[in-house]
Amino acid sequence: MRGREFFTARTVSETLAGFRPARRTAVESVPLAAALHRVPAAEVRAPDPLPGFVRSTVDGFAVRAADTYGASEGLPSYLDLAGAVRMGAAPTVAVPPGGCVAMPTGGVLPDGADAVVMVEYTAETMPGTIEVTRPVAPGGGLVRADEDVAAGAALVPAGRPLRAPDLGLLAAAGVTAVAVHARPRVTIVSTGDEVVPPCTAELAPGQVRDATASALAGLVADAGGEPVVAGIVPDDPGALEATLREVLPTADLVVVSAGSSVGARDETAGAVAALGDIWCHGLAIKPGKPTLLAECAGIPVVGLPGNPLSALVVFRLVGVPLVWRLAGCEVPPPEPTTRARLSRDVPSAGGRLDVVQVSVRDGVAAPLFGPSALLSVLTRADGHLIVPEPATGLDAGCEVEVTLYR
Amino acid sequence: MRGREFFTARTVSETLAGFRPARRTAVESVPLAAALHRVPAAEVRAPDPLPGFVRSTVDGFAVRAADTYGASEGLPSYLDLAGAVRMGAAPTVAVPPGGCVAMPTGGVLPDGADAVVMVEYTAETMPGTIEVTRPVAPGGGLVRADEDVAAGAALVPAGRPLRAPDLGLLAAAGVTAVAVHARPRVTIVSTGDEVVPPCTAELAPGQVRDATASALAGLVADAGGEPVVAGIVPDDPGALEATLREVLPTADLVVVSAGSSVGARDETAGAVAALGDIWCHGLAIKPGKPTLLAECAGIPVVGLPGNPLSALVVFRLVGVPLVWRLAGCEVPPPEPTTRARLSRDVPSAGGRLDVVQVSVRDGVAAPLFGPSALLSVLTRADGHLIVPEPATGLDAGCEVEVTLYR
Repeated sequence: MRGREFFTARTVSETLAGFRPARRTAVESVPLAAALHRVPAAEVRAPDPLPGFVRSTVDGFAVRAADTYGASEGLPSYLDLAGAVRMGAAPTVAVPPGGCVAMPTGGVLPDGADAVVMVEYTAETMPGTIEVTRPVAPGGGLVRADEDVAAGAALVPAGRPLRAPDLGLLAAAGVTAVAVHARPRVTIVSTGDEVVPPCTAELAPGQVRDATASALAGLVADAGGEPVVAGIVPDDPGALEATLREVLPTADLVVVSAGSSVGARDETAGAVAALGDIWCHGLAIKPGKPTLLAECAGIPVVGLPGNPLSALVVFRLVGVPLVWRLAGCEVPPPEPTTRARLSRDVPSAGGRLDVVQVSVRDGVAAPLFGPSALLSVLTRADGHLIVPEPATGLDAGCEVEVTLYR
Repeated sequence: MRGREFFTARTVSETLAGFRPARRTAVESVPLAAALHRVPAAEVRAPDPLPGFVRSTVDGFAVRAADTYGASEGLPSYLDLAGAVRMGAAPTVAVPPGGCVAMPTGGVLPDGADAVVMVEYTAETMPGTIEVTRPVAPGGGLVRADEDVAAGAALVPAGRPLRAPDLGLLAAAGVTAVAVHARPRVTIVSTGDEVVPPCTAELAPGQVRDATASALAGLVADAGGEPVVAGIVPDDPGALEATLREVLPTADLVVVSAGSSVGARDETAGAVAALGDIWCHGLAIKPGKPTLLAECAGIPVVGLPGNPLSALVVFRLVGVPLVWRLAGCEVPPPEPTTRARLSRDVPSAGGRLDVVQVSVRDGVAAPLFGPSALLSVLTRADGHLIVPEPATGLDAGCEVEVTLYR
């Protein structure tokens, strides 16, 4: 069995730092309207400067700044109104010395002008004559043609998922398609003789419907991946190995949610070891210890504990960053968090990361304990808190940071 | 002009509390795999109890608890091994007095047994005889048939968007489709003589590409809505009114991103007032003051400032909760936040909510100032901080909470 020497337990931080498969998904071009949360494969640069013309930032009058020097309420400058600039059109008049042109916010500065005086500091005392009561400096009331973005400057960086405002800047620059990493295909394999599909109407004694695959698919989608639910494999190393051989060629990441018995856990390791190298088997985390990380023909494989809650805990901490990294994003976008006061003591063993499901109400985080086999915790938990490896528990009343589920 | 008497400025908190259109989207059934972040229209209840059978939570041996009373390392109980339970199958043997049956985690408790003793406290000293070194109480090592979820109990509540773990519990209960509110259709109308579509390759002098619509579409999608980009209307009240008449019948919410000139702002109000009631015109927020909220034939209409950054600020604070509410969700899911130290003083006028774009690095939030017309702030900002209405500024070095963009 290849890789047996790597059968070793790791801490979560060792895993995040050390298990970094080189694989990245292919690059594809998507239209801007489909680019939200996708990861640009390269920095996107501005083809042209923005705004592209000298643009007024105020409603007022385009002037030669020197014509306003010394202007005050008591001693205004008087300028001849030479015309008006229309929105979205080139100016049809220039500003002569001693003259001005009416400007809307966003209009093009006419030739001859070097500033725009705000309408608030002007009055049309006589038809055709504008009184200016405050001086404006050259460059006042306008932005330069490349002040927003210079030609060739970065619009959005590579590797950071695109946010809604990014789409606005790209649209302004005329970028209507972006080269992004393909969504990682995450193939989810469930195992267990007792596990049947969720659509099973009537359960035979001892059967349970597959809870983990549906929840994992949701986490994968939240991480920008494309979940592929590959179905349920019986507790049989040959069957799992055959399934892995079948799904590996079309997957970017394979997730095996193990059966919950001791035997089932070992079967995953056996099947994976036959196809690649096991990086760790056992994680210093509770719940989630029976976790396996491997690479098979360049495809990362995550073997999750059989308990659905444990599987989700591990996938959030270890699997979600992997999905993002496969798409070229090294720092996953932030998750919602809140600070809360702990309602009761939380025991923990040192040297192990403890992940505690909590409900949060009115600033109080209440740990949800009880048999770990209970699935109803999945919907009662608003989030989790982490007791780090060195700590040996948290005291009631202390302030904790809760990662909120969304 | 109807509704003229309502032309009135409001605070953001007044608006969130007071502008609450009654409209909700229709209810539709979606398969579980498409239900992530959708809002259930009604509580979903369990058709049957979970797990549905008395289930072992440990690997070990099903026993009659009384047969283990008094067992210890020094004086074990000896039980006859009557057989084994297979995963996913009904037991084929019962536990007789003085006997036991081998149990995998997740197996069905056989008749006669009332507890499962963990394998760690047992040894098979002779073939067919199990030595038990620790007593187990009745109910130990197992969950009752309805301990996880009772028949008819709530699986997920109405009105809270479904999270990934919720999908797991629903799958376990055999719920493969959920009645959810339809995604709100949010029709985005851009206005302005200077505004041209993002696909415009060459700009004529004074033209700008529509940045706001693409960014708004992203925010709408993040809020679970379906953005419908309706295109660009010239600065003409008749044209805007005609467009509104056309889009209102198929929209759940209409968003008008106004031209940036004074005249353009007033045109939105005129067109909307002709079709419905204006709830407020002017919001005590910076940036974003020229905001308009109205209801036209039961459809909420949001008129946004012409400046793209201002438009996004207002839509995040006022529009996003509206989109969620249209889908039946009163409390939008949490956004990511972080605490950071402010790098410099932020001035603010009392009585107005100030929204300051910031970049965040190493726990320091640096306000992004400069001409508000600059679009590049859209991608440089990692989030925003809020200076509440009563405050008159924030001091450099103080701790602030930043809402992070994702």
